[in-house]
Amino acid sequence: MKALVTGAAGFIGPHVIDRLIADGFDVAAFDLQEVDIPGVRSIVGDLTDAADVDKAVSEVEVVCHIGAIGDVYLAGNEPALAASVNVTGTANIAVAAAKAGARVVYASTWEVYGEPEYQPLDENHPTNPDHPYNITKLAGESMLFAADRLHDVPTMALRLGTAYGVGLRANSVFRIFIDRARAGEPITIQGDGAQSRQFTHVRDIARAFSVACRSDLREVALNTVAPEAISIKELAALVVDRFPTELTFGPPRPGDVPPAAVSATRAADLLGWKAEVPFDEGLAELMDSVVASG
Amino acid sequence: MKALVTGAAGFIGPHVIDRLIADGFDVAAFDLQEVDIPGVRSIVGDLTDAADVDKAVSEVEVVCHIGAIGDVYLAGNEPALAASVNVTGTANIAVAAAKAGARVVYASTWEVYGEPEYQPLDENHPTNPDHPYNITKLAGESMLFAADRLHDVPTMALRLGTAYGVGLRANSVFRIFIDRARAGEPITIQGDGAQSRQFTHVRDIARAFSVACRSDLREVALNTVAPEAISIKELAALVVDRFPTELTFGPPRPGDVPPAAVSATRAADLLGWKAEVPFDEGLAELMDSVVASG
Repeated sequence: MKALVTGAAGFIGPHVIDRLIADGFDVAAFDLQEVDIPGVRSIVGDLTDAADVDKAVSEVEVVCHIGAIGDVYLAGNEPALAASVNVTGTANIAVAAAKAGARVVYASTWEVYGEPEYQPLDENHPTNPDHPYNITKLAGESMLFAADRLHDVPTMALRLGTAYGVGLRANSVFRIFIDRARAGEPITIQGDGAQSRQFTHVRDIARAFSVACRSDLREVALNTVAPEAISIKELAALVVDRFPTELTFGPPRPGDVPPAAVSATRAADLLGWKAEVPFDEGLAELMDSVVASG
Repeated sequence: MKALVTGAAGFIGPHVIDRLIADGFDVAAFDLQEVDIPGVRSIVGDLTDAADVDKAVSEVEVVCHIGAIGDVYLAGNEPALAASVNVTGTANIAVAAAKAGARVVYASTWEVYGEPEYQPLDENHPTNPDHPYNITKLAGESMLFAADRLHDVPTMALRLGTAYGVGLRANSVFRIFIDRARAGEPITIQGDGAQSRQFTHVRDIARAFSVACRSDLREVALNTVAPEAISIKELAALVVDRFPTELTFGPPRPGDVPPAAVSATRAADLLGWKAEVPFDEGLAELMDSVVASG
């Protein structure tokens, strides 16, 4: 099966590509910059350019649409950029998929729910996104589902947990903690550190995409989130355990999403997907990779 | 008070401008094309161009942000255009308003709720928009509220009922019925005609904008909808009553939003706004104006 992966030069994209190749897909990669992955055709293009997107999608049967302004702080500071890439870009994918007869599997986020009215959050919970990142991600998801109804584009959305793993962006909390601790600098927890996340390993996420590409599910959003809740304090403690340094506390960052329990029962029921990588193992592997890279 | 009205060359914009002038505002008009309204400075610009928007907003204290892809069928066929104008354009307004210290009153729509879980729809009802038009309008509203929280931009949203009145677009159901009946051609009702709407007169809407501009309400969405529910069959009957012709029935149009009762109690409570124009009077005035224009 021919697949296109957008956001191929980002964090999640390359892991999805690896998994798709292992599962026998013929993979093309789409991003603003060239990617160099053996056996993968690299297409340089811009999600906001309909012609670029049309051309890339025309040759495939399924699109893993991961490309986005995924940096929450960038989206907060440049909301028009987030709107353009995350909403217009996804509309371009939807239109191109309608022409090509391609299926779209979309990288959404557990953050679409906003303030919890009940917990754990399931997919029936109302969506009240509150930040340019999650607002534009939800709009992209909704645009794809509208294309499914109006133009018969088979779509589904994976509402991903906060992803971590090898290759994580340098401005993620993981990398900031690891990099500072290795340099012997104090780690600053923003807020009281009690806020927790169901950090989800990028290999588990990549497997979800591969299964979703081969699924017949349509117009369905699935929480794709690991079961373990890890607080920022626990994360910091695990990092300090390996790279001893001082722990300090600072003011919370505006735009930080408060913690909430998220249920992935529907993904287990409908897709047969469950997260498998234990957090301590995933974190150890990430720390190993940072050490190995110098 | 200095106000900027976007979408000044559209249907609702000119009525809002008239009302603001009557209420003593100093008004500038923003649209892709020049508008010629006495006493109003016309600014030609593109909502998707941040520099155009910055410049226009920099000089005012309040923005009535009405400019949008408001044609549902156009939005359905060109979702990327709807995303660009309605979401990126609104993000540009939010960023410009943050710089200028301006308030933003946003033209949202009752269609943001999607399929009703209960009726009448109030502002606490979950939002499940299902079409590129209402998806992008809700995303714009959410982007403004996020700017209020993150960047201290005073914002509010009017979730407008389906607007009608003098100057309505030629492809609206009102104009299609009137134009066909006047030409002696049969009127075709799409679907069974039982679907009703709380059609809201554009002068009532214009008054809501003027009050909202002077209000201190923030991060609040208000249903701005007239109380009378009029079915398409009733509308057709009123038109045929004046311009006798045959009534026929055709298949429903995809993307048509099913009817739902909408409550404007909150707008009455918080803004002191209620619709005042009775439907039969508003429709008679519209038919008069179409006759008068030839």
